[in-house]
Amino acid sequence: MGKALNYTAGVGEKAGWVIEEKIFDPSHLGKCEAIFCQGNGYLGQRAALEEAYVGEKRNLFVTGTFDKFDAEEVTELPNLPDLTNLELTIGGCRFGLDSGQLKSYSRQLDLEDGFLSRHVEWVSPAGDEISLDFERFVSLADEHVLGQRVKVSAGNRDVEIKIKSGINGRVTNTGTQHFHEGKMRLHKGFIMEMCSATVQSEVLCCEYAANLFYVDGQRLDLYQLPVIDRRFLAVSASLTLKAGQTLTVEKLACVHTSRDKVYEGEESAKEKVIADGRKHMEGILESGYDALAAASRKAWKEHWATADVLIESQDSYDQIAVRFALYHLNIMVKKDDDRVGIGAKALSGEGYKGHSFWDTEIFLLPYYILTDPNTAKTLLSYRGKSLPGAYRKAKENGFKGAMFPWESAWLDDGEVTPLWGGADVVTGKPMKILTGVLEQHISADVAFAVWQYFIATGDQEFLDRYGYEIVIGTALFWTDRVEWKDKGADGQKCYITDVIGPDEYKEHVDNNAYTNYLVHWNLVLADRMIEELQKEKGETWKKLEEKFQLEQLLTKIRETVDGLYLPLPNEDGIIPQFDRYFDLKKIDLTKYKECDVVGTIYNDYNIEQISSFQVLKQADTILLMLLMDDAFDTETKEKNYRFYEERTLHDSSLSKSTHCIMAAELGWTKEAYHFFRGCLDTDLGQVMTTSDMGIHSACMGGIWQSAVCGFGGVRILKDRLRMSPQLPQEWSKLAFHLVWQGCPLYVTVEKGGTEIKNLGEKDVSFYWGEEEISIPAGEKLMK
Amino acid sequence: MGKALNYTAGVGEKAGWVIEEKIFDPSHLGKCEAIFCQGNGYLGQRAALEEAYVGEKRNLFVTGTFDKFDAEEVTELPNLPDLTNLELTIGGCRFGLDSGQLKSYSRQLDLEDGFLSRHVEWVSPAGDEISLDFERFVSLADEHVLGQRVKVSAGNRDVEIKIKSGINGRVTNTGTQHFHEGKMRLHKGFIMEMCSATVQSEVLCCEYAANLFYVDGQRLDLYQLPVIDRRFLAVSASLTLKAGQTLTVEKLACVHTSRDKVYEGEESAKEKVIADGRKHMEGILESGYDALAAASRKAWKEHWATADVLIESQDSYDQIAVRFALYHLNIMVKKDDDRVGIGAKALSGEGYKGHSFWDTEIFLLPYYILTDPNTAKTLLSYRGKSLPGAYRKAKENGFKGAMFPWESAWLDDGEVTPLWGGADVVTGKPMKILTGVLEQHISADVAFAVWQYFIATGDQEFLDRYGYEIVIGTALFWTDRVEWKDKGADGQKCYITDVIGPDEYKEHVDNNAYTNYLVHWNLVLADRMIEELQKEKGETWKKLEEKFQLEQLLTKIRETVDGLYLPLPNEDGIIPQFDRYFDLKKIDLTKYKECDVVGTIYNDYNIEQISSFQVLKQADTILLMLLMDDAFDTETKEKNYRFYEERTLHDSSLSKSTHCIMAAELGWTKEAYHFFRGCLDTDLGQVMTTSDMGIHSACMGGIWQSAVCGFGGVRILKDRLRMSPQLPQEWSKLAFHLVWQGCPLYVTVEKGGTEIKNLGEKDVSFYWGEEEISIPAGEKLMK
Repeated sequence: MGKALNYTAGVGEKAGWVIEEKIFDPSHLGKCEAIFCQGNGYLGQRAALEEAYVGEKRNLFVTGTFDKFDAEEVTELPNLPDLTNLELTIGGCRFGLDSGQLKSYSRQLDLEDGFLSRHVEWVSPAGDEISLDFERFVSLADEHVLGQRVKVSAGNRDVEIKIKSGINGRVTNTGTQHFHEGKMRLHKGFIMEMCSATVQSEVLCCEYAANLFYVDGQRLDLYQLPVIDRRFLAVSASLTLKAGQTLTVEKLACVHTSRDKVYEGEESAKEKVIADGRKHMEGILESGYDALAAASRKAWKEHWATADVLIESQDSYDQIAVRFALYHLNIMVKKDDDRVGIGAKALSGEGYKGHSFWDTEIFLLPYYILTDPNTAKTLLSYRGKSLPGAYRKAKENGFKGAMFPWESAWLDDGEVTPLWGGADVVTGKPMKILTGVLEQHISADVAFAVWQYFIATGDQEFLDRYGYEIVIGTALFWTDRVEWKDKGADGQKCYITDVIGPDEYKEHVDNNAYTNYLVHWNLVLADRMIEELQKEKGETWKKLEEKFQLEQLLTKIRETVDGLYLPLPNEDGIIPQFDRYFDLKKIDLTKYKECDVVGTIYNDYNIEQISSFQVLKQADTILLMLLMDDAFDTETKEKNYRFYEERTLHDSSLSKSTHCIMAAELGWTKEAYHFFRGCLDTDLGQVMTTSDMGIHSACMGGIWQSAVCGFGGVRILKDRLRMSPQLPQEWSKLAFHLVWQGCPLYVTVEKGGTEIKNLGEKDVSFYWGEEEISIPAGEKLMK
Repeated sequence: MGKALNYTAGVGEKAGWVIEEKIFDPSHLGKCEAIFCQGNGYLGQRAALEEAYVGEKRNLFVTGTFDKFDAEEVTELPNLPDLTNLELTIGGCRFGLDSGQLKSYSRQLDLEDGFLSRHVEWVSPAGDEISLDFERFVSLADEHVLGQRVKVSAGNRDVEIKIKSGINGRVTNTGTQHFHEGKMRLHKGFIMEMCSATVQSEVLCCEYAANLFYVDGQRLDLYQLPVIDRRFLAVSASLTLKAGQTLTVEKLACVHTSRDKVYEGEESAKEKVIADGRKHMEGILESGYDALAAASRKAWKEHWATADVLIESQDSYDQIAVRFALYHLNIMVKKDDDRVGIGAKALSGEGYKGHSFWDTEIFLLPYYILTDPNTAKTLLSYRGKSLPGAYRKAKENGFKGAMFPWESAWLDDGEVTPLWGGADVVTGKPMKILTGVLEQHISADVAFAVWQYFIATGDQEFLDRYGYEIVIGTALFWTDRVEWKDKGADGQKCYITDVIGPDEYKEHVDNNAYTNYLVHWNLVLADRMIEELQKEKGETWKKLEEKFQLEQLLTKIRETVDGLYLPLPNEDGIIPQFDRYFDLKKIDLTKYKECDVVGTIYNDYNIEQISSFQVLKQADTILLMLLMDDAFDTETKEKNYRFYEERTLHDSSLSKSTHCIMAAELGWTKEAYHFFRGCLDTDLGQVMTTSDMGIHSACMGGIWQSAVCGFGGVRILKDRLRMSPQLPQEWSKLAFHLVWQGCPLYVTVEKGGTEIKNLGEKDVSFYWGEEEISIPAGEKLMK
């Protein structure tokens, strides 16, 4: 079997925009279900095919509708009743690609307009030759709307076609049912309504769908027989299609929930959502498929106008893969809703239950901060609004201040990391998941992102509202969290023991360098902020003084900053990832590094053995050197990069972008390009098992960062923007948008030089390498 | 496509024992999943195939484990984690009959030993020729045990085989998840354990499974890779099978629950069930597949020795279909557990949620009363133990006494009929289900069955314990339920208005003849019982006197008996099914009666129109005349049979057996045989959509009744057994077992005469037609 994915399906104007699945493989349905996921930040529609298959994952999510099935489980994003299933019976045979004869198959996601289409030529087991064209979209213009169109053409002879299409509430999250059965109704004999609430969070989800039929373009008033069963509502219709004729089915649908932004603070949301849903569905039917589709296309066009990253490369894969990342970065976030974060698998699968991790702050926020600061503000406001949960988590763990949850869902949930994972394969007993308790660096990561956002935007209002409290609240947590121990001659020193760093292959480590350095930075920033606040003694000072007793806290922070142990390079210039790291055994990883799939080390060693090796799942100290750029000199970066890269398996999707950017910074563009390609392959590569549980959201940010921060050399350093591009040999051009201090910039990097256009209405200044430069409003600069 | 089912697959000694599915049809999976269901009264394992298909229903039930998902739903029998799924990958291709080339297919249920086997010859899409033999059993010797064996033989070349086999907790009841995720463990690296409790009733269900591998009969110590995921635990193993070699996989499993009979009243059932399950699983592995299989075969052999009904017919279908019914009658009931009834679909599907209806009393109990009185006692004790629920239902409806639930589950649930059904296809609004409130005849049906049981067994202990209370409690209900109205010259009369009779095509009817006559009978029996009790004034009298104030009740009962309106025949000798029945319009039903499938009248008329016709869904007045045999003379029976038969669609599976027995009684054996065949076809016929939601339990009893009570002429009349056989022309022999007053009888009916053997240790007397005869212990009689 050849490669399933084709990256050159787009031709002419569509070149670089179309990803094609050219082979149907029923044993690898998950890959394209996830990477072809459609959405708009509100809705996420996984791309399960219209007809059902064994092993499919039919997911529809609405962001933020978290629900907890029972006390034993953690809250998760529930899988809504399915709208996309549409079963065809052709001359008595159920249409399905695993039966009959498949003469041609192509499924394409058009990244430019967000449309997913499929062309199939099929001969049924009974010998009917049929050609089918499927198309669907999730509207970017109206977040509630989904459209689907199926064209069936009869080939060799007349054939009876049956269509069964509706709303299926029998779907679950891998067996867990989050919805009450709710109510089903049929309006006007063809408009289907299914309203069901989640079992614990009581979010009422109302879905509407209706089918319209055409033969050779002429509207057909086909009788639609209602099929009403438990958790299932559909209509069934049939007709005889003459050879050469084409039947078109348009399925229009919308989804509204009582958690929708429009009902925020609304007490009668549950009545309103039904009324609004019904009215909207009427409007949708009035507009019709073509108008709805056109509106969505227009919205995508507008988006790309300020979002596209252009790459001219020897391999066109680079261009399409970066656009693939940008596509997902656009549909994974509800840009105006600060009550919800981005899930680790976005809205493309059930993996990680829709929870948000540090992925957002470290891997995704650089993209939003530098291109779409309003969305960045939304995401950080989500952390601000989540402070009650962070206070709660700290309290539950016996600490003061704000301890952000490792996994985050509802604003006030606090920690939602599951307590137990799968069973240990050796002992057979369930394994405790420790990240929720031990992976504490996230609290510093959030503070870090707040400051990056502020530097890029100067958004004082955000600082006043949330920023100061996040940074000072987490600092309070750290002052309480660190452990003071006698250090002999040095007097007292403080340590952070028993944590998990970003490299999750090591649990219960002491003084993880990444953690300690970020905590130090967090404390120093808090010190600076408290000083500023005390100078002015405004409203924010008042609010925070009440909460934290700032004077006292400042003393405590300064003591902790002074006492905190920061691991320093050893005689070889290497910073130990954690205490006694160098005592671990070094093993040869070549075999695993050359492997197409991750985690192969587990085939030879168990977790205890792996814990005793110097092996890393992902960048840890290298990531530290990227974030704390000015704390380490180039030589230290080089040495540590070489040392840790040799020991890193990149078994996390977060790993390669860090190595790409660091290698680019160090001038090793060949190596950087190698890791860049690795990032691209994480979801979009030819390995068909990578994305079953959903795409890797953080990796989408990592791809953008690799291109723009890596090869474009764009970084936020010393409170300023810095650019210092270095294209890899394979590229002749890289062009991208940035927004700095509210000012839109367009940067075009070519081998010959770089052009920076200031598209804004004020002057902008930044570093070009070490050089400070300024571009007046509306002007451009060549470097 | 030819007929899918073959009834002549058994040859030699197996003739008349084997049902074969000879065509695999992925669009009609439900039929054989249900009719090939295996079980032992405790477990019910629906016969979904080992490999998964779209549209399959993979059900495993443990009787009585009812659970209610939420306040909006009613309690139902939950679908337990699946044990039967076993996925094979053959040379890289997933084994499934919808792909590749199916060269031969045969699946057979052996009714004699309860084994289900399947032979498949298959060429994979990659060209590997494989032959597969599947076999499975649910042990009749040890109710917790399931065994499965798969043999895979490589044909044309060496081929890599992968097996994935485990326990899948992702199954639901049509989308409703009744289980917490619970705990999964792996013991000794290969014994899988999944323990999960139901969400509301907190029944802990523990399942164990282990796989053993053999190549050409030699045990293979194959590495079993654990696959542990959400609600899913399996092992995966692979090997290369050489051409000509055979791989055998034995999957042994057991199920224990905290509701098991052994834990009745046990407080620490939840700890015990796990310990017992683990220990049992060890024992199972020690015994091995062959020994477990042999034990089950032995148990079946013992069962058939006193259960078989022999039929010599021109069409061998008659014999196998009756055995098919006997097979299901044996696996549908847990004979020693009086805390649970028989579900309308037994343990073979989700239909009717596992609830018990009047089906048990009127259609199934005659079989158990006359062949297996201990089981009959268990089933009636279930009603006795359910009295608290019946009192509750009466109270909730504003009545005194015992009003048995139309649908019954847990002992103390009371009514569990869902309040709402599917949406009305015309208005689109949800439809109210009225049977739970209006179909009240069940309370008299239960009393009727109590008396039948007592007559057949003389079991005074049962009467004392439950029987009197059921009959008197229901009588109290009826005295309160009837409505007194002025009847002019006749003085006061009482009526029962606004009910649904057995013919559910008519709702809100007044004075349904079936209901009124049975109520009358119920009251008369209560009168007789109270008189008897008052004579002795023993413990039972004391208990019931306290509960019911018998003196006062007796007066009330007698008034009601005197006043109760019993519809009498009109001038044509026809009893009106209910008031104003004759005013309804008569329509020609020929078209619908000739149809293979039921409910076709709905294609032409809606429910309101049907309500205005004289059309019947099922026998109603005819059934009355069967139960109240001595209340009607032969002429009345004949006239009413003719009148109502013409108007009956037999759209209920309960209908045809009644017509068969009545026609046989009236001497119309040709017509009786026609309805007998109709009963057989209900589940076992060639129409492939009849049994998707499960087999029709009551119809299994109806088949036995048609043969034994119809053609065998066996009836309980005037407190005595009566026999008066008349074979249909097609039959030369009918032989069956009976138990009367604890005495086993064996009856052989042939054209030339009937032989009745008294196999018991005491004399037995009964009516032969009108003649009273007696057979001494151990003797036989020819008639």
